[in-house]
Amino acid sequence: MGSALQYQDRNINLAIVGATGAVGTEMLMCLLKRHFPVGVLRLFSSARSAGQTVRFGTQTLMVEELREDTDFKGIDIALFASGSAISKHYAPIMASKGIVVIDNSSAFRMSPDVPLIVPEVNPHALKNHHNIIANPNCSTIIASLPIKAIDGINPIKRVIASTYQAASGAGAAGMQELIDGTVAYLEHRKFTPDIFPHPYGFNLFSHNTAIDEQGYNEEEMKMTNETRKILEKPDFRISATCIRVPVLRTHCESLNIECENPVELHAIVDVLKHFPGIRIVDNRKDNVFPMPNITSEQDSILVGRIRHDISDSSGKTFWLWISGDQLLKGAALNAVQIAEQLLLLDSLR
Amino acid sequence: MGSALQYQDRNINLAIVGATGAVGTEMLMCLLKRHFPVGVLRLFSSARSAGQTVRFGTQTLMVEELREDTDFKGIDIALFASGSAISKHYAPIMASKGIVVIDNSSAFRMSPDVPLIVPEVNPHALKNHHNIIANPNCSTIIASLPIKAIDGINPIKRVIASTYQAASGAGAAGMQELIDGTVAYLEHRKFTPDIFPHPYGFNLFSHNTAIDEQGYNEEEMKMTNETRKILEKPDFRISATCIRVPVLRTHCESLNIECENPVELHAIVDVLKHFPGIRIVDNRKDNVFPMPNITSEQDSILVGRIRHDISDSSGKTFWLWISGDQLLKGAALNAVQIAEQLLLLDSLR
Repeated sequence: MGSALQYQDRNINLAIVGATGAVGTEMLMCLLKRHFPVGVLRLFSSARSAGQTVRFGTQTLMVEELREDTDFKGIDIALFASGSAISKHYAPIMASKGIVVIDNSSAFRMSPDVPLIVPEVNPHALKNHHNIIANPNCSTIIASLPIKAIDGINPIKRVIASTYQAASGAGAAGMQELIDGTVAYLEHRKFTPDIFPHPYGFNLFSHNTAIDEQGYNEEEMKMTNETRKILEKPDFRISATCIRVPVLRTHCESLNIECENPVELHAIVDVLKHFPGIRIVDNRKDNVFPMPNITSEQDSILVGRIRHDISDSSGKTFWLWISGDQLLKGAALNAVQIAEQLLLLDSLR
Repeated sequence: MGSALQYQDRNINLAIVGATGAVGTEMLMCLLKRHFPVGVLRLFSSARSAGQTVRFGTQTLMVEELREDTDFKGIDIALFASGSAISKHYAPIMASKGIVVIDNSSAFRMSPDVPLIVPEVNPHALKNHHNIIANPNCSTIIASLPIKAIDGINPIKRVIASTYQAASGAGAAGMQELIDGTVAYLEHRKFTPDIFPHPYGFNLFSHNTAIDEQGYNEEEMKMTNETRKILEKPDFRISATCIRVPVLRTHCESLNIECENPVELHAIVDVLKHFPGIRIVDNRKDNVFPMPNITSEQDSILVGRIRHDISDSSGKTFWLWISGDQLLKGAALNAVQIAEQLLLLDSLR
């Protein structure tokens, strides 16, 4: 998605809630890098981080504490990058004042009147917003691009996904805990994890969200439910196993995709190559495929290992191996792209 | 598999080829720990490591260079833990002298006259050996136990596997490169990998074996072809995506398994619980499932995340998440268990 600058005749007054966190920090960088038409920019955080100063281009901004009595006057769009509790409390307050909230938490994602948007996939759904728009789960966003691209040429019957998720999904503290735990391991020191339930250095573990009665953790059910909502296909068949791996900020996913019709790989490559936000990295000769060290700090979703599933002789099933920066396309970038779409669609109230 | 000690009236003279490597070192520990009836023990390596001394219980053994003119007289069983080239050259020489070779390399695995053995899965196939027995690929061994267990109560139609493989698959040098690359990353130093084609610290990548015309790497095709041979089902449907993760010595695998008949999870749990070599770790309440930091240096394959695949309403498909120590059950332990089986079956020539 390009910058919306050219479509607007005025700058947009923005608030970022959770501005000092891992996602908030990336939001600021995305706004700058994409030349978002920022007018007044107000940064909010908890009391703990309030009072810090943050650089934004040539400006130095003071982080304000988000409080019941905060005056939000003049803010057009608020990007929320805090936890669900903050979003649940403050997003409706701001929305009621006419501010369009783009919320990175899971608080409103499944609310019927809240659009859940990946701009490359379902920008049309933005039109019906009521001042709260949800940014999907990171693993869901990353998979949604190739899924949408392929579904457009050969309807998808079913997706079986296994994820390789980075520490950044648990924020800056999660990333730091991976580093601290790794250093402790290397120094043969005992390390007691705090953010994660298990040691993370040179370890990996099933995603540490609550497990439901069917045996799925919340991350896995987000992938199922949010994908269905984004695609507007309530019966879309997708099932996931979500795993945290000792990587800092890139999620990878192994996707096994069954289509209605026999799959021609060149057609898959072709549609992926032309889909916005996707870059194909599929160099069989040199064994170069999507991986964290080439995805990190990149905007695109990388796709490779494109091949038929040899266990399905019908030729209707194939594999993809994808990666994407969890903090960028998985969170901050997608939120900023939603803001850009708002301007493009001229639907800002 | 228990120790074979009680079945034998004499000790077995053993050779270990590649005795100073990661797998060879674990073989020595397995022999000791399992009270294998070791008689004379001779350790072989390349010229580079020859002359080193190695402790084995109360003995101190000198590592010999493996040479054309080495005298193998008196050796009953040779455990090979070197690369394919060494196995291809020396295994037939030793086999022709009546020594039973248990080979951890891929050199002979798919040879029709070489049994490919996982003792819990297909011990009967040992009977037909011609002095060379192959130890399967690590990812294949680890998956073969639950696959065999389940196939016995509800025939498996298809397995879709995504692996999370440790550095130890590339030996001690691979493990050291993961550590060195991680330290370099933490110290912001440039690191040029030597064993692997990509930086490994906080990174992960598609398994770095050659890719065939269909787009599969060798590791993936080993999982397909070796599983078929072990199960004696040449059309068994299994397809894999094999990924190396920054973990030292435990492989994990996400398995999506479709059966002929609707799956009752309690029956799956029951058969897995009673299958030798498997331990169930499936604590949904505390979010404790198989993971490297509890599998490493353990003999058992851990199995958890046992749940129906919600994308298949027939109820015939379910997920497993498994882990196993790559150096133990994935290599050294399985080889020593094969030796134990040889004694049990009294088939030693």
